Amino acid sequence: MSSHKLCMIPGPIEFHEDVLQAMATPGTSHVGPTFIPVLGESIELLRQILFTSGQPFIIAGSGTLGWDMTACNLIEAGEDVLVCNSGYFGDRFGECLETYGAKATHLRVPIGESPDLAAVSAALKTKKFKAITITHVDTSTGVLSDIKGIADVVRRESPETLVVVDGVCSVGSEEIRMDAWGIDVVVTASQKALGAPPGLCVMGVSERAIQVFKNRKTPVANYYANWTRWLPIMNAYEARKPSYFATPAVQNIFALHVSLKQIVAQGIEKRFAVHKEASAKAKKFIHDLGLTLVPTSLDHAANGMSAVYYPEGVTATDLLPKLAAHGIVAAGGLHVEIAPKYFRIGHMGISVTEPERGHLDATLNALKASLVECGYKGAL
Amino acid sequence: MSSHKLCMIPGPIEFHEDVLQAMATPGTSHVGPTFIPVLGESIELLRQILFTSGQPFIIAGSGTLGWDMTACNLIEAGEDVLVCNSGYFGDRFGECLETYGAKATHLRVPIGESPDLAAVSAALKTKKFKAITITHVDTSTGVLSDIKGIADVVRRESPETLVVVDGVCSVGSEEIRMDAWGIDVVVTASQKALGAPPGLCVMGVSERAIQVFKNRKTPVANYYANWTRWLPIMNAYEARKPSYFATPAVQNIFALHVSLKQIVAQGIEKRFAVHKEASAKAKKFIHDLGLTLVPTSLDHAANGMSAVYYPEGVTATDLLPKLAAHGIVAAGGLHVEIAPKYFRIGHMGISVTEPERGHLDATLNALKASLVECGYKGAL
Ligand SMILES: Cc1ncc(COP(=O)(O)O)c(C=O)c1O
Ligand SMILES: Cc1ncc(COP(=O)(O)O)c(C=O)c1O
Repeated sequence: MSSHKLCMIPGPIEFHEDVLQAMATPGTSHVGPTFIPVLGESIELLRQILFTSGQPFIIAGSGTLGWDMTACNLIEAGEDVLVCNSGYFGDRFGECLETYGAKATHLRVPIGESPDLAAVSAALKTKKFKAITITHVDTSTGVLSDIKGIADVVRRESPETLVVVDGVCSVGSEEIRMDAWGIDVVVTASQKALGAPPGLCVMGVSERAIQVFKNRKTPVANYYANWTRWLPIMNAYEARKPSYFATPAVQNIFALHVSLKQIVAQGIEKRFAVHKEASAKAKKFIHDLGLTLVPTSLDHAANGMSAVYYPEGVTATDLLPKLAAHGIVAAGGLHVEIAPKYFRIGHMGISVTEPERGHLDATLNALKASLVECGYKGAL
Repeated sequence: MSSHKLCMIPGPIEFHEDVLQAMATPGTSHVGPTFIPVLGESIELLRQILFTSGQPFIIAGSGTLGWDMTACNLIEAGEDVLVCNSGYFGDRFGECLETYGAKATHLRVPIGESPDLAAVSAALKTKKFKAITITHVDTSTGVLSDIKGIADVVRRESPETLVVVDGVCSVGSEEIRMDAWGIDVVVTASQKALGAPPGLCVMGVSERAIQVFKNRKTPVANYYANWTRWLPIMNAYEARKPSYFATPAVQNIFALHVSLKQIVAQGIEKRFAVHKEASAKAKKFIHDLGLTLVPTSLDHAANGMSAVYYPEGVTATDLLPKLAAHGIVAAGGLHVEIAPKYFRIGHMGISVTEPERGHLDATLNALKASLVECGYKGAL
């Protein structure tokens, strides 16, 4: 364990000891009385965390599977979807939608910018969209989109359009209020600000979207991701009854359950605030080092991560190994157009909610030291 | 931990302490040097365990996702598939295939019987099948199918037909030799005789099947399960290079890796033999109690589990809670036509490879004691 480097990438993150301990739960029946309430309660906790009376899903897989679930259950072939595209994950979500026959119209913004409300409004006037997708935090750019503002625009311009949020890099670190803001779908995964190891696709779906699903005209063209199969299973676990479709990832769900309980116990409002504070601190430190963020304004920069351009003369091959030598794992660039030019650090979960662990300070200090080692003068 | 009951269902099973410890690995980057060789080596170990030079896949999900992967990557809409159906899982695999446009012809056998080679041969003469599926062990009946025999028949009658084995309840407990027997696809999952917690879909795909996939005429109608995405990822990890499509279940793969290493270290041939011995012992004990197995002959009874009819006067509501009180979790019936009439116990993995743990003895003794408590006289 002494060789463990801090995992300060924008997911997977560092996990609480109690969460890891739950991962080591011995073999347990997926339909027995030890596990049933754990999944049942996790579903209930997700409702609180997402501020929704809708339907959570917790399925073995990853965030990407949540795109398939959205595309195959809510969109029918030939329907139009407006993709607010603020980076890599918008491109990919669009590809996923098209795989299931949707027609994706991309509303692309320049790298580092966030979707503009007027542009969304204008796009919504061009045709009838079954859904709009928004990457809440595009992990490739660190851009935060204004999902509340966009949902408002949709309600005004095209109230029947389903509002779908890719919250893989935002649920648990950014404010989301599904019902109050009129958000129909939140796609996320366990490994980022929900604070549990990767392996779970996690979703919240509004009652309205569940009705749209139930009123489909064509069959769902997927087996594993089909809500027809999963809805009764989620309902059964919540009713504390055994049921089976496909074996849940029992240990991962034990772990998620521990993390969700911690999140609710600490208070979700406080969690938003703490992530904001930590992010402000990180971004000030980065600014004071003379570095530039990928997001063009702090107003639309994510609170759970920072995407930062290398200063002149420093490259990924220089900086990332030096950070690692200081015990910090950071991530390289992901957005294809600028990948070699920037790096990313995550500041989510226990690394910021429990500052006494010193993760963020260690990361920022290592960043400074590594830049100095790279010969960067601005850091002095 | 003292409250832990032995998980003696046909999966999830009891896991080794070292496997559970690996589940608790701290947060680790999915594209970093700690994890890359772990997934890379797991792919290599699977080749040894499945006796194939083909392509393994390890994907966050469950066994069911392997059906989707088979259906969406290898079958094109309108193609015929022959489903050797020996229980619940044949029905379900058939449904999955049809979801992707395949035409499933079910070769159903009476409950407790295994598919007959002559019937397979006759069915193959009726039309051209793109693939044949065989549930190696149908977990709902405990029936073991003769995959080697069936693969021989296919090679004789219809050599182009892909041989697909649902090995979810057999890989690691029953003999499988993919290349020597001419098996094109093995679908499995982590939580049974591969000895790691649920959360991973695991597959082995022959080089021939990969070619069939590459020569598809129509696009793959699934995003998360699309091998076009996953093949380069599996190849990259095996080449010890970073790559990303969807975040792998890092901790689950650390755990699977430990278990795969144990399996290979103990010797895979020995593993088959030990499962056979343990099964023979369990089945003799069950027979001596005067109970009847669901499989109509020991010749086609699985070695990793036993499906057993309740004796007259004993029901699920009587027996299963009594077994639980003795610290043993067993499973009820699953095959819809006989579900209330029988129960199932698993005897896979460390519960049989490390008999000094006493799991199987404890289970059999608890069974006897519970039957006595139920008033069953035959047990005396
Ligand atoms: C914004 C966003 N969407 C989707 C995904 C895909 O999730 P996963 O990698 O868990 O499949 C990610 C992963 O990092 C992400 O950051
Ligand atoms: C023979 C068989 N096939 C497929 C499956 C489905 O696997 P999973 O439950 O992991 O989705 C199972 C699960 O028990 C099985 O026993």
